[in-house]
Amino acid sequence: MTSVAILGGTGQQGRALAQRLQHAGLRVTIGSRDPGRARAAVAAWIALAPAVEVADNAAAVAQADVTMLAVPFTFVDPLLEELRPHFKVGSLVVDLIVPVTFAGGKIAMVEVAEGSAAEHVRARLPASVRLDCDEFVCGDSDAARAEAVALVALLPGLRPVDVGALSRARSIEHLTALAIAINRRYKIHDARFRVVGLT
Amino acid sequence: MTSVAILGGTGQQGRALAQRLQHAGLRVTIGSRDPGRARAAVAAWIALAPAVEVADNAAAVAQADVTMLAVPFTFVDPLLEELRPHFKVGSLVVDLIVPVTFAGGKIAMVEVAEGSAAEHVRARLPASVRLDCDEFVCGDSDAARAEAVALVALLPGLRPVDVGALSRARSIEHLTALAIAINRRYKIHDARFRVVGLT
Repeated sequence: MTSVAILGGTGQQGRALAQRLQHAGLRVTIGSRDPGRARAAVAAWIALAPAVEVADNAAAVAQADVTMLAVPFTFVDPLLEELRPHFKVGSLVVDLIVPVTFAGGKIAMVEVAEGSAAEHVRARLPASVRLDCDEFVCGDSDAARAEAVALVALLPGLRPVDVGALSRARSIEHLTALAIAINRRYKIHDARFRVVGLT
Repeated sequence: MTSVAILGGTGQQGRALAQRLQHAGLRVTIGSRDPGRARAAVAAWIALAPAVEVADNAAAVAQADVTMLAVPFTFVDPLLEELRPHFKVGSLVVDLIVPVTFAGGKIAMVEVAEGSAAEHVRARLPASVRLDCDEFVCGDSDAARAEAVALVALLPGLRPVDVGALSRARSIEHLTALAIAINRRYKIHDARFRVVGLT
């Protein structure tokens, strides 16, 4: 059984993922700096996904075949610094981070020296770990992309779209920034992009 | 009757727009550096949109309520330099440019000092001209966005989505770059993004 760790799993995105992945039959662990607090947060919805577990970040990552990063961009550097020695060799990291700020009520992309948050994350992972991102799947390893595609396909209502090299990550991050802008402007909560024209 | 000039209208995107806008009841002129050559290109499909006219760029822009820029990014600087004195005061420019290169068979975004091709265009337009872009409509003028939304709504199958300030243009350009990448990867020709979650 594939074991998935979700870091940042007490947020809205992580919570939705945890529930859907558990319902899809995966073993799901939410990683947290403070497992006590995370357990309290998870208690509010654990009835919807009773097999979801909570652990500290290092323990969650150490047993995970797939680690999903759903933390704010500003948290990622110290987090990966701490977790670097704990990733399983050959495991997959799925980056869900969108580097946006909401300063003064305005959404803006954070400039990232590596080109995108995903490339920033890649530079901070052990070489033995593969990286992929999101429903729109990109990454420089064919195997990692294939695994991420299979994972996304497990989630009801999501269709994985393979967009190729990791250098596409910035475009995916812009896509998500645009979805956030649309949410705000139209006062909705779940704007997403669907590719039309793909059979 | 609203008069629309399409610059770059002999390309695939411009041609599709010209046909659809004429069918929607607008007066459509295709602007070209070389009207003779443009007329020859248009002859291939003029039966589908018989009222479409051809003119040189300056004449097309001078009578246009709306000018659509569908030229390659590398052409835009000399073009706007030439056309700057010819735009009608208060007219609307709709920027459809996506600054991508295909060097070595790989799609890459062109870095633009102003942040996006649309902001680059804005900096080269007279202040009296309003700027907007695309099906995903952005711009710093509420009136320009409203007019562009109305224009997009005339096109069958397209739903305008207002994403706010001109600074969102880069995200829209990334969206289109991603559509091009999906087209290539899946060997299709018409990948587009539809916003899901918007009623």
